[in-house]
Amino acid sequence: MRATLMYEAGDVRVEDVPDPVLKDPTDAIVRVTRSCICGSDLWPYKSMPHKDDGRRMGHEFIGVVEDIGADVGGLQRGDLVVAPFVWADNTCDFCREGLQTSCRHGGGWGARGVDAGQGEAVRVPQAQGTLVKLPVAEDSALMPSLLTLSDVFCTGHHGVVTARVRPGSSVTVVGDGAVGLCAVLAAKRLGADQIILNGRHTSRTDLGRDFGATDVVAERGDEAVEKIRELTGGDGTNAVIECVGTEQSLVTALGAVRAGGAVSRLGVSQYRNVPLGFDTMMRNITLTGGAAPARAYIEELMPDILDGVIEPGRVFDRLIGLDETPDGYRAMADREALKVLIRP
Amino acid sequence: MRATLMYEAGDVRVEDVPDPVLKDPTDAIVRVTRSCICGSDLWPYKSMPHKDDGRRMGHEFIGVVEDIGADVGGLQRGDLVVAPFVWADNTCDFCREGLQTSCRHGGGWGARGVDAGQGEAVRVPQAQGTLVKLPVAEDSALMPSLLTLSDVFCTGHHGVVTARVRPGSSVTVVGDGAVGLCAVLAAKRLGADQIILNGRHTSRTDLGRDFGATDVVAERGDEAVEKIRELTGGDGTNAVIECVGTEQSLVTALGAVRAGGAVSRLGVSQYRNVPLGFDTMMRNITLTGGAAPARAYIEELMPDILDGVIEPGRVFDRLIGLDETPDGYRAMADREALKVLIRP
Repeated sequence: MRATLMYEAGDVRVEDVPDPVLKDPTDAIVRVTRSCICGSDLWPYKSMPHKDDGRRMGHEFIGVVEDIGADVGGLQRGDLVVAPFVWADNTCDFCREGLQTSCRHGGGWGARGVDAGQGEAVRVPQAQGTLVKLPVAEDSALMPSLLTLSDVFCTGHHGVVTARVRPGSSVTVVGDGAVGLCAVLAAKRLGADQIILNGRHTSRTDLGRDFGATDVVAERGDEAVEKIRELTGGDGTNAVIECVGTEQSLVTALGAVRAGGAVSRLGVSQYRNVPLGFDTMMRNITLTGGAAPARAYIEELMPDILDGVIEPGRVFDRLIGLDETPDGYRAMADREALKVLIRP
Repeated sequence: MRATLMYEAGDVRVEDVPDPVLKDPTDAIVRVTRSCICGSDLWPYKSMPHKDDGRRMGHEFIGVVEDIGADVGGLQRGDLVVAPFVWADNTCDFCREGLQTSCRHGGGWGARGVDAGQGEAVRVPQAQGTLVKLPVAEDSALMPSLLTLSDVFCTGHHGVVTARVRPGSSVTVVGDGAVGLCAVLAAKRLGADQIILNGRHTSRTDLGRDFGATDVVAERGDEAVEKIRELTGGDGTNAVIECVGTEQSLVTALGAVRAGGAVSRLGVSQYRNVPLGFDTMMRNITLTGGAAPARAYIEELMPDILDGVIEPGRVFDRLIGLDETPDGYRAMADREALKVLIRP
């Protein structure tokens, strides 16, 4: 089959790789019908050292079950399924607590002999725990939004849940990428009153306004903090969702949060230290968030997509075939595209 | 009247200062009957630069209302009251949210013309919002425990509340000072199953065991983390309460916390940066806590003290008169005393 490999920063290729086959009785084979490129894929695209045999890419996909191991219950050949961005047994103590990203028998896509999402098919370990059936046809118009349940919309939701957003909350979202926009939508969905989107790309912040942002702050750094404080009577917002991953964006987030509030971090951290000294302690600032356990949220969020209440799939602004994936990376890195959907 | 002033590190004196008088109609004058020295007072005792006119010390006290302003409701001359370690109106939005440490009309003791606790009397601003009546006599045997409602027991409670300790939780407490021991007691009170106390002073950890610690780890740093992980099947504990304030203790706390868990910091932070990079993000670690809004907790915690269910006052192991306060500081700094109670 064909699949996407990254060999080093800037070097993405679609190549022939072995067809996946069942290895363990808990496996399933899924033929991928939709995949996409994640903002987090851009970090290695910018900085990955050379790897002779390449790294399989992609961790978001929807597909059709083609084969299933003997121990996989609840699934049949022909089922359309969505996969969260880590696989997990969904039965261990961490999974039962809703932290499938720390599953005792789980792992990531594209590592240790497991296929990745940007390809024609995937061997899915722990298939019963990992995959969630989609009650629609393979070519449903809802595909883009349902694909966001793999990662990006669940990630935005994780940010607002961990930052304790509730009806009436004020929220700042730092970053106008697909995760940031999904965080806006998730905050609106949970009843936030004021949602300030901190981003400078008008086409993106316009979608953010459609998703529920009440204010847009285009400035960065100290100037962004000043504007956010002006918009909140000097206080900052109850919750701040950090959707970039740089130290600067985290400093902005900490400056924008109200005393007693929470900063939830969703951007993959490119920093080692966080400036959380005396001031943030006296102000009772909480830093929370992390890698989203998408699996914990899929059943909760899917009905609003099926019912047309929310349309997170609007973050996809380009559709490509699998062979065009290298150009999809380039387009996202160059900010020509917000988020690229792949139809293999 | 007599009151305690610190002129620089190691230089504490009890001197004559002006008697407090009502300034604002929201003030009360309280004659102090019990006060104490806080672990946080030891930071300036170790490092304060010289201050010509000295700094008034003490932020924990119980006393009798001697005079009250016209706008102070709910209090009468002769009432015995406890004061939380910041004063607050208890009516602003922050106070209504239970964050009296960020009160819009509040402040700290010993600053900007407000008296401090280690003296014979205090002018209490925002007296109606700040002071809480004690339904006991001035010489009650419960005085030490009731005095911990000013700060140290409420602070320990704040740690376990913000770290989401609940029945069945596992908890690590880093630090065997009075706050750490109170955090143990507070965790036990909220139903924690396993409480690991990380401290090396046997007399203190013995009291910790009385308060509910199920395990004591005397090691520090990486060795402490290793022991705590051994005690928890390799996982660490759901909650970690950091009660020291140094970078080392915070690193220990972050190493001891289970994925998805929370570190609550209570020790006054002597660091600027917290090592919260990629690993803690992937593990969904929350950093929370901060300066405790004692006022928010006093009514909730007092009944268990009045009923004899808990006895946080056992953290006091020395009783002195006001004139002995300088030696009280020395004794705590030399670790001769755990926490010093002052009877002016």
